[in-house]
Amino acid sequence: MEFAVWLLGIRSGGKQIIVVDNEDASQLGIHSSDRVEVTYKDKHITAIANVASEFPKKTLGIYGEVYDKLQVQNGETVTVRPAERPESIGYIRDKIGGRRLRPHEVKAIILDVVERHLSDIEVASFVTSLYIHGTSIDEVEALTNAMVETGKTVDFGKSPILDKHSIGGVPGDKTTILVVPTVAAAGFTIPKTSSRAITSPAGTADRVEVLCPVDLTGEEMRSVVKKTNACLAWGGALDLAPADDLLIQVEYPLSIDPLLLPSIMSKKRAIGAEYVVVDIPTGRGAKIKTIGEAQTLAQDFIELGKRLGMNIQCAVTFGEQPIGYAIGPALEAREALSTLMGKGPVDLVNKAASLAGLLFEMMGSNDGAQEAKSIIKSGKAEKKLREIIAAQGGDPDVKPEDIEVGHETLEIRAEEKGNVQWINNRAMAQIAREAGAPKNRGAGVLLSKKLGDKVQEGDVLYTIFSENKQKLDSAVQLAEKLNPLGVTGKFGEKMLIDRIPTKKVSYEKPFILER
Amino acid sequence: MEFAVWLLGIRSGGKQIIVVDNEDASQLGIHSSDRVEVTYKDKHITAIANVASEFPKKTLGIYGEVYDKLQVQNGETVTVRPAERPESIGYIRDKIGGRRLRPHEVKAIILDVVERHLSDIEVASFVTSLYIHGTSIDEVEALTNAMVETGKTVDFGKSPILDKHSIGGVPGDKTTILVVPTVAAAGFTIPKTSSRAITSPAGTADRVEVLCPVDLTGEEMRSVVKKTNACLAWGGALDLAPADDLLIQVEYPLSIDPLLLPSIMSKKRAIGAEYVVVDIPTGRGAKIKTIGEAQTLAQDFIELGKRLGMNIQCAVTFGEQPIGYAIGPALEAREALSTLMGKGPVDLVNKAASLAGLLFEMMGSNDGAQEAKSIIKSGKAEKKLREIIAAQGGDPDVKPEDIEVGHETLEIRAEEKGNVQWINNRAMAQIAREAGAPKNRGAGVLLSKKLGDKVQEGDVLYTIFSENKQKLDSAVQLAEKLNPLGVTGKFGEKMLIDRIPTKKVSYEKPFILER
Repeated sequence: MEFAVWLLGIRSGGKQIIVVDNEDASQLGIHSSDRVEVTYKDKHITAIANVASEFPKKTLGIYGEVYDKLQVQNGETVTVRPAERPESIGYIRDKIGGRRLRPHEVKAIILDVVERHLSDIEVASFVTSLYIHGTSIDEVEALTNAMVETGKTVDFGKSPILDKHSIGGVPGDKTTILVVPTVAAAGFTIPKTSSRAITSPAGTADRVEVLCPVDLTGEEMRSVVKKTNACLAWGGALDLAPADDLLIQVEYPLSIDPLLLPSIMSKKRAIGAEYVVVDIPTGRGAKIKTIGEAQTLAQDFIELGKRLGMNIQCAVTFGEQPIGYAIGPALEAREALSTLMGKGPVDLVNKAASLAGLLFEMMGSNDGAQEAKSIIKSGKAEKKLREIIAAQGGDPDVKPEDIEVGHETLEIRAEEKGNVQWINNRAMAQIAREAGAPKNRGAGVLLSKKLGDKVQEGDVLYTIFSENKQKLDSAVQLAEKLNPLGVTGKFGEKMLIDRIPTKKVSYEKPFILER
Repeated sequence: MEFAVWLLGIRSGGKQIIVVDNEDASQLGIHSSDRVEVTYKDKHITAIANVASEFPKKTLGIYGEVYDKLQVQNGETVTVRPAERPESIGYIRDKIGGRRLRPHEVKAIILDVVERHLSDIEVASFVTSLYIHGTSIDEVEALTNAMVETGKTVDFGKSPILDKHSIGGVPGDKTTILVVPTVAAAGFTIPKTSSRAITSPAGTADRVEVLCPVDLTGEEMRSVVKKTNACLAWGGALDLAPADDLLIQVEYPLSIDPLLLPSIMSKKRAIGAEYVVVDIPTGRGAKIKTIGEAQTLAQDFIELGKRLGMNIQCAVTFGEQPIGYAIGPALEAREALSTLMGKGPVDLVNKAASLAGLLFEMMGSNDGAQEAKSIIKSGKAEKKLREIIAAQGGDPDVKPEDIEVGHETLEIRAEEKGNVQWINNRAMAQIAREAGAPKNRGAGVLLSKKLGDKVQEGDVLYTIFSENKQKLDSAVQLAEKLNPLGVTGKFGEKMLIDRIPTKKVSYEKPFILER
């Protein structure tokens, strides 16, 4: 059928979408979300149809992405016909039915995700099925390979390549900013890519961006690594596993992440990582609640690593409170820098040393954590971080006090004396976000007390930082409501931990594991 | 945040969609598919955000559905803020996790489906979860009630109300056009609503539309029923279970229908049906393959009926070949009319009489099928059908030969002698659709031979009807490829039934059960 083109002048953010009136759709024999083949001169593309009512007849509305491919002008004629249903839909249907998919079937699905041949409905159903039925290790391997094969890779021309990843979930976890320079200072290559916050107050990319630019191209990344043996780049600009970026758009609203392992491992593989330490923060208030769960996840990482030719070690770390004292991009960048300069909290130093140490031991060291600690103590890690900052285009002489944090602050004080019995990670993260993090880099929370600390009535428990008064007020209100830090006389004396209201008021998303 | 409105001038077909640039989205703290609350003067609505790239900044693109609610003009200012996540998302999340939902939770989800507060992703995930985990009878009941409560109902002021439903899947099944006048001729009230074809060559509404208008309003339907005790209306215009119309848009592309029972039963309940016979065509080539499956489905219908205060009887009918000889709206309308006039195929008469007979027996008859047969034989059913046609605005004196069928025809003849060993329902349906049905009413297939019939070389097996040469050619090509009717000397002599190609070329949708 022939249609006159109408350039809608909007972009979908990637998807190739066309719009037709419902009468035309019925004549074409298509429904909303069906695929059509659009032909203009010698160019063909497959697009997803949106069926609209009261749309001009015999008119094909096209999104920017379709224009990019066809280069057709307003009013010109194109031919539209129903496209064959891609093979991958049959495999998605099989997965809904609980069948294990073969590697070439997984590849077909991932390819169609990347080429935008699948609708949101089909992708959502695939992801839901993966979640409900679970994925076999063969499927996980195939998903990982497919994600790598459909993305870009970066070759640093060096070996071995070391890497570090945390599944996240603990606010204030700026460990990467310490681990990377420590490992690089020991002479190893560690080209680290990180994500920005999705649901947290700061991702590593957000934290590092306070110190220097992070959106490097593959070429820039190679050059930084050549100079410094390391980098602290944002992974998002590198197109390493575009399938993952698309799949997460579906996983996020559903708060499920069946693709956690392929998502993480495809990005490691794309940069050629050979030795990887994976941090699994565990405990009440972390994403992984029990050691048992952590061990299962660790086994999966290790097994998948073997299949991909990567050496993986997993660290189960204490995840029941924030790491260090600072939460929020600028506050955390400041704390990380101070810590490398010798004035940081012991838990942060220990965590960084443990993780770097595991990598050192994989490379032959007898006491990796000790080695890592001395590198940090010696100032070599600080020097290396400053090299990286310089190579990425930041100020290598930056001092912690140069880093600007929110000027609107409010201290939350203890109403009774006792010990800090619990800190609610999620509530702390929500308060920091309400104060403006990660968008407002200076916003966040600075703890004064941590688990087990003695508290006198009137002591400052934590301070909320914001860049404007309104957000500060809003964060303070939330803090009063959430009560994220508990002080009591003795463990267990105060028995009522929480009240469950009769009616859930609104649904809050569970954590999504970070990638 | 404030935005200037841009009326996009397109409609989504129901969804309330707004479009924002991705930078604005990030400032709002929303992702694609998140909900936002849009306020203009004293009007608020919840809409689903589409995040676009390269969209004008601080501009809110709005679809027609949003305009309808807000009545805002181009360039006017509206306030946008992230909406609270609806409670129902938590319940969907629970269902993904396999939890049985409580009635008020099901209601919340269905309400948010109807009010368009859920994105395609969320609805797709819900439907996929229902399919994979299955639905308990409590959930099915709750889904049915929720679908009724969120739709319109029609009260005929009469009792008892009888009804008939087929889950479909067998081409040429025009039984309803016989059952409804037969039941009404016996003095019972049977206000039948039917659907149009989704994947088949003709739905009952398509067939009846050849004889008279079918898109009645609730008021018109009441008036037809008052006059004739019956109607043959299209259900789509009545808004009886709007949730179902929305959910099917998700089920269709996935080729799954976990909501079959609520979908069917909600529409029966909405018209106050008290005695219902459900036809379950069964066999190779039907949707339900075995008697065992049919019995399970029947038990579910009956149990659900009890809970809803409806008397259900199920008929498992032979579904291995088309009913009668005609496939396609006009060919079938003609055959149905001829049959009521005494010149029809025996299987069609028997099927209609059995189904009407079950209803008669529910009303106290001792031999319902015999009673139905005599009503048909006496011409009373024909007379009643003509009354219904007249009441709905058609020509009550229509003769079978007045009904125009496609003028482009081609006869397919036997290449060898023997018996008809098999007829492939699905292939026949595809051929009829390729010839133009149901859009072209005169298109379809007319069988000359059915299962077990003796065939001589050169005998006509079936004739393809089309309204234009091109579609006829295309249908003939498909017929040659699909070989939908098998003639062999003796059952079982010809051993090769089908060849499985090494590579599946493209995925074809399995049946969706009709509603």
